[in-house]
Amino acid sequence: MKLVYQGKTKDVYELPTGNFLLKFKDDVTGEDGKFDPGANTVGLTIEGAGQAGLRLTKFFFELLNDKDVPTHYVNANIEESTMEVKPATVFGSGLEVICRYRAVGSFLRRYGKYVENGQPLDAFVEVTLKDDDRQDPPISEDALDMLGILTKEEYKSLKELTQQIGSIVKEALADKCIELYDIKFEFGRIGEQIALIDEISGGNMRAYKGDRYIEPLELERLVLEDISK
Amino acid sequence: MKLVYQGKTKDVYELPTGNFLLKFKDDVTGEDGKFDPGANTVGLTIEGAGQAGLRLTKFFFELLNDKDVPTHYVNANIEESTMEVKPATVFGSGLEVICRYRAVGSFLRRYGKYVENGQPLDAFVEVTLKDDDRQDPPISEDALDMLGILTKEEYKSLKELTQQIGSIVKEALADKCIELYDIKFEFGRIGEQIALIDEISGGNMRAYKGDRYIEPLELERLVLEDISK
Repeated sequence: MKLVYQGKTKDVYELPTGNFLLKFKDDVTGEDGKFDPGANTVGLTIEGAGQAGLRLTKFFFELLNDKDVPTHYVNANIEESTMEVKPATVFGSGLEVICRYRAVGSFLRRYGKYVENGQPLDAFVEVTLKDDDRQDPPISEDALDMLGILTKEEYKSLKELTQQIGSIVKEALADKCIELYDIKFEFGRIGEQIALIDEISGGNMRAYKGDRYIEPLELERLVLEDISK
Repeated sequence: MKLVYQGKTKDVYELPTGNFLLKFKDDVTGEDGKFDPGANTVGLTIEGAGQAGLRLTKFFFELLNDKDVPTHYVNANIEESTMEVKPATVFGSGLEVICRYRAVGSFLRRYGKYVENGQPLDAFVEVTLKDDDRQDPPISEDALDMLGILTKEEYKSLKELTQQIGSIVKEALADKCIELYDIKFEFGRIGEQIALIDEISGGNMRAYKGDRYIEPLELERLVLEDISK
């Protein structure tokens, strides 16, 4: 098993079958020791964060597979903190696709002249480039097309898929009286198909119970409490 | 004549007729004493910059009026450095619309992972919010629609108008063997119609002769040299 990539929150190994194994780490993104799903740097290490992230990811990816939403998920081994996935190629050097239900985070920082903190947004989708050196800049549909990263047609599919998956996650959280404020996805091509890759965990989203922000580890407990009983 | 607004490079007076008078100043945008059309602050004062900017603006707006492109232009008085314009309402608190023919400036800073410095771009249009406190953030068609700043239909018109005006300016410069790299416009509503407002001068664009950047004052001389003869 060959280590092919060391990421901020995951390591990636190549399996002899051609599939890949993602090893979830206890490092989470943030700044100055404070968790921030929008941050670009590892902010802190939380014991058990990797396993909790994987448990939620397994839960959501299996939910998506049941609904025939294309993903790279094959199976997960919670004890080993690993997930087996199909090989996928990313768009350009990688994109993040954000779906927003409330104006918080970088959206609020950019458009605070026009929105109130926490104002409802209608499943607003935006794309940012994965580029640490340039602080993951937002990029428009036209620019993605012009730079050869995504065709207009692929953008349309990506946006629809993002809103579909966002809505599935949002509903699953709502069942636990948790409100999803925003969520960040990564996509890739598996063959000709656009599929969800990476993970879906507390580290990729902002979730609230009433006015209270739910930390990733607590989110895992709240969402999966019935399942583990 | 009542002073209604003091801008970074222009003052605005209200006329008894309901029209407005723009008084061009010798201040240009930039940073650390260096001219930068993309900058948000007054960088330096260049004697004659106001009059030169007005001369070019007059030239381009009259060219646009001849081609039936809607603008706010009524007439100009070069000696007084003033231009009379029709009243217009801006979108939201004001937008800047950029048309790019070469990857330079903030486009290159954002997307440098995917483009070379100076790489040709296909009349790429992007919109930024006028918001000094938030460094004029770029904003997408979807966000403009969702925040009630521009409908999708208005965005389409704005983009087409931007490419049309950009192409007219680009051709006029090409006649003088000058290449337009990028240009920044402001638009507003005059009645029901979307019209070009503000100015078109060296301060709004990056223009090159071969590899050499043309400063605003020189641009005015080069573009208008036959006219003033």
